[in-house]
Amino acid sequence: MVSTKIVVIGGSAAGAKAAAKARRLDEFAEITIVQKAPDLSMASCGYPYYVGGVFNDRSQLLCTPAGVVRDATFFHKAKAITALAQTEVTSINRSKKQVSCRNLLNGEEKILEYDKLIIATGAKPNMPPIPGINLEGITTLLTMADTDYLRKICDDKKVKNAVVIGGGLIGVETVEALQLSGIQVTVVEMLDQVLTFLDWDLAKLVENHMKSKGARLLTGKGVKEFIGQDGKLTGVKLADGDMINCEVAVMAIGVRPNADLAKEAGLDIGKFGGITVNSYMQTSDADIYAAGDCVEITSRISGQPVFVPMGDLANLEGRVVGENVILGNTVTFPGTIHTGICKIFDYTAGSTGISVKAAERSGLTGYTAVVNASPDKPGFMGAKILISKMIVDKNQRLIGYQCVGLGDVSKQIATAAMAIQGKLTVEDLINCDLPYAPPFSLAIDHFIATAHVMQNKLKGRMTGISVQEVWDKLDRGEKPFLIDGRNSNEYEEMHLGIGELLIPIGALRSRLSELPANKDTEIICFCKISLRGYEAECILRAHGYTNIYVMEGGIMAWPYPRKK
Amino acid sequence: MVSTKIVVIGGSAAGAKAAAKARRLDEFAEITIVQKAPDLSMASCGYPYYVGGVFNDRSQLLCTPAGVVRDATFFHKAKAITALAQTEVTSINRSKKQVSCRNLLNGEEKILEYDKLIIATGAKPNMPPIPGINLEGITTLLTMADTDYLRKICDDKKVKNAVVIGGGLIGVETVEALQLSGIQVTVVEMLDQVLTFLDWDLAKLVENHMKSKGARLLTGKGVKEFIGQDGKLTGVKLADGDMINCEVAVMAIGVRPNADLAKEAGLDIGKFGGITVNSYMQTSDADIYAAGDCVEITSRISGQPVFVPMGDLANLEGRVVGENVILGNTVTFPGTIHTGICKIFDYTAGSTGISVKAAERSGLTGYTAVVNASPDKPGFMGAKILISKMIVDKNQRLIGYQCVGLGDVSKQIATAAMAIQGKLTVEDLINCDLPYAPPFSLAIDHFIATAHVMQNKLKGRMTGISVQEVWDKLDRGEKPFLIDGRNSNEYEEMHLGIGELLIPIGALRSRLSELPANKDTEIICFCKISLRGYEAECILRAHGYTNIYVMEGGIMAWPYPRKK
Repeated sequence: MVSTKIVVIGGSAAGAKAAAKARRLDEFAEITIVQKAPDLSMASCGYPYYVGGVFNDRSQLLCTPAGVVRDATFFHKAKAITALAQTEVTSINRSKKQVSCRNLLNGEEKILEYDKLIIATGAKPNMPPIPGINLEGITTLLTMADTDYLRKICDDKKVKNAVVIGGGLIGVETVEALQLSGIQVTVVEMLDQVLTFLDWDLAKLVENHMKSKGARLLTGKGVKEFIGQDGKLTGVKLADGDMINCEVAVMAIGVRPNADLAKEAGLDIGKFGGITVNSYMQTSDADIYAAGDCVEITSRISGQPVFVPMGDLANLEGRVVGENVILGNTVTFPGTIHTGICKIFDYTAGSTGISVKAAERSGLTGYTAVVNASPDKPGFMGAKILISKMIVDKNQRLIGYQCVGLGDVSKQIATAAMAIQGKLTVEDLINCDLPYAPPFSLAIDHFIATAHVMQNKLKGRMTGISVQEVWDKLDRGEKPFLIDGRNSNEYEEMHLGIGELLIPIGALRSRLSELPANKDTEIICFCKISLRGYEAECILRAHGYTNIYVMEGGIMAWPYPRKK
Repeated sequence: MVSTKIVVIGGSAAGAKAAAKARRLDEFAEITIVQKAPDLSMASCGYPYYVGGVFNDRSQLLCTPAGVVRDATFFHKAKAITALAQTEVTSINRSKKQVSCRNLLNGEEKILEYDKLIIATGAKPNMPPIPGINLEGITTLLTMADTDYLRKICDDKKVKNAVVIGGGLIGVETVEALQLSGIQVTVVEMLDQVLTFLDWDLAKLVENHMKSKGARLLTGKGVKEFIGQDGKLTGVKLADGDMINCEVAVMAIGVRPNADLAKEAGLDIGKFGGITVNSYMQTSDADIYAAGDCVEITSRISGQPVFVPMGDLANLEGRVVGENVILGNTVTFPGTIHTGICKIFDYTAGSTGISVKAAERSGLTGYTAVVNASPDKPGFMGAKILISKMIVDKNQRLIGYQCVGLGDVSKQIATAAMAIQGKLTVEDLINCDLPYAPPFSLAIDHFIATAHVMQNKLKGRMTGISVQEVWDKLDRGEKPFLIDGRNSNEYEEMHLGIGELLIPIGALRSRLSELPANKDTEIICFCKISLRGYEAECILRAHGYTNIYVMEGGIMAWPYPRKK
């Protein structure tokens, strides 16, 4: 019997997973991983947490749960896989089914033959040609070397100021890591918000939280130049001329597929620059598969190819590839519904499916979105407020869900992700049977409560208005009649101060005379989370008022300055 | 316009929710809640946490999130609902559409007329006629009065020993509450396990954890008699003659529907003694609806009526009733998939869908179950092990999921519950897109990993054997060849000591000569979580061994004594 020869280019998430899966399905295949970096199978999503000192044992980024470092010896012994680290593949010869590679330490060249080739070359950082970008002090946070560099900076406690360019997932995780080490961090983001998987309104709540932890945030700002002295970074000059002094800058403006090898080999490349694969994760060459951050996959929401460089997807794709290279095309990868999550200090932000912004961009119509705020569990168990946005299509099917807050966002997003994958409708969600006990949730879980609010909106019982619309009205000088339905203790503690009249919900029925005589006057009701705001709407409609709105999510969803 | 008269019997979860929902849909309905207890809208699931001192402000059990006690004044002012507390409904006159009630404080009798009646009379505890059951010191934990009684006992610090009769949800929550106050607690459970929503194997892991926290557990034991002196409890005598000294005993052997009023009024009653309702939550009388612990609802798993007294379902049912009494039968309640969760000290146990035990009981065939253990997040983020059992039907559709452990069980159960409701299959689950970042999950979430193990089993790649089967084999004197695939450090820390041979997975290929010469010998492989156990199976099969099993869940799922 001749063994199948499998070569895997890249030994991080997708490559290592594909190799391990292939081994489990064929004990006698000859499997070789060629890895350019010194390490293998790195837990790269953990880099910011090591930099930030959440843990101090660097080897944990490279270990199995049993504490064994996943180095070449481990791959050899436990998996019978040859792993060539610090070895670069220089070219793929598809007609000969060979790859050429070079050992980066000793320059030795080697040709590997393959029956099946797996490309898992990952992504590379976007590094725009900004003047000064090669100054010492400018780094990314994408490799173990980057991680070691930033960790040393944190440990040395000499750097006072850092700038993070880009407010995406890695950007905000880096902010936390540096800030935890006492470094003053400024985020410079070209767009008008951080974390683009969120809509603007929820992203602003995240930004407010980051600011409350001491981070400086500059959105809508571009970098013009890196300023240095003696080759070392001393500051970042913005497009608007402002200057931020700093000794370190972390570039986190995203990554792009590292598909050069595939391109040179003549494989099909997609519009985002990623390798084109079919649902078997097979490239345009039937003997070459690809997985991880170097490929484009399918959006299960839009049906279109997308570039989504996420560690969890890379692992799942790798598993599919590992099976198909051994057994032929037997299993498929369905794509992504764009689920993502991010911790920012003690706050969490997550999203799954489509956002309103993405819906607008894709020209989708007929959808409905609603914002809801409510606690994650009872007050007596230490409730934390969650703020969510739910989006359903014209058939009332869930297509998107975002959630931010100090509470258990992760469960909310997982719940929504499964609901999207199950193609559930609002009707399904309003009575869904989720785990309830006081340590974990309210009797009506925040997710179900959000579906209830959505249903009230769809049935025309709640006429929502977003915090942005309210702000814009005020900004235009309009003077809607504003009712805050809370009690005076709550008001004393916190209030918007935008001209609202405090009428506790319990007093509303007896204080109708204080409302405008013209029952067609626009009235906007809210409270802390707008449950009482909604009750106010019900009462006022019943009393003949025709133009009532509930400010969705209430004060908790208000990202603008409050009077108190 | 004549207002609709709505009378609600019962003002706890379902009744209060129905009344509030009805109000929001009809500002002018005359809504009256008649409540036998002194309090309204109590957070009864929170009682054990107040008893245990998790919080000390009793009013939080009765407050809105804004800190307002939900008493008659609150219902009057905020909801325009008349709430008659300490008032008992004595009879329902269906032909006259009236209920008679009596004020328990002053004996005053009153007749209330209704257009629509809502019965939400809840449940009452099972109190078997055990001799001595009326002794002082014997209580339940189902009312505010019970709660106050037990809290006082905890605060007074005089009671040394307590017995909890029944190891269901309330039983184990009570154990924690009392134990936290320094009371030595013994649980007496008639069945062979606690928490019957779990299968025996996972329940035993929960019991081990309870024992590690100092609780005494006696399963398979009945109570024969309560022993007292001067009218006060001094001990519990078991059916086997054993005696447990104690000053307090909490009866927690379940509840049954409190449907006496409905029965006397001639409404249809189901086989569990609960009020029969259709999907509109309407009883056999078209003008009478019912919700909460007094009704039987539909199991969405079996399609059969079931009695599931859970606070979350009561609220959802109440919402449905509130809408239907106002708008006619417009919305339906689909029933339950039997989702439940429970905190036990720092451990959590949850379940959704069907268990193996329930599947066997119902005669279901063709299903497959698998146990999987794996961490909830990376080791460097403080991973905790989760142990799960996944059950799929003959079409590989998810029908059940149980999870226990120190980690984030709640998210697992919510994820599974939505997957069951979405009718997802193993094929759907293996590539599902859940939120991943190191603070929240592994790159391959525990839930997805469990689906992967299930798939390996279904594809015949992993031949699982349960810990029970292994134990039974050993118990019968069989001598399967046992391989522990971990390394020696791990072995030194913890091992089963059941005759296993330690062969680290990395050494297996070179130590095949130590295995039985007869390749048809039964060999059982495992490791801490049996991932390496599975790898061992793959290797051994490839080398011609024909009779290999993987002990599912590995050492983490082993509920029996370990040598170390």
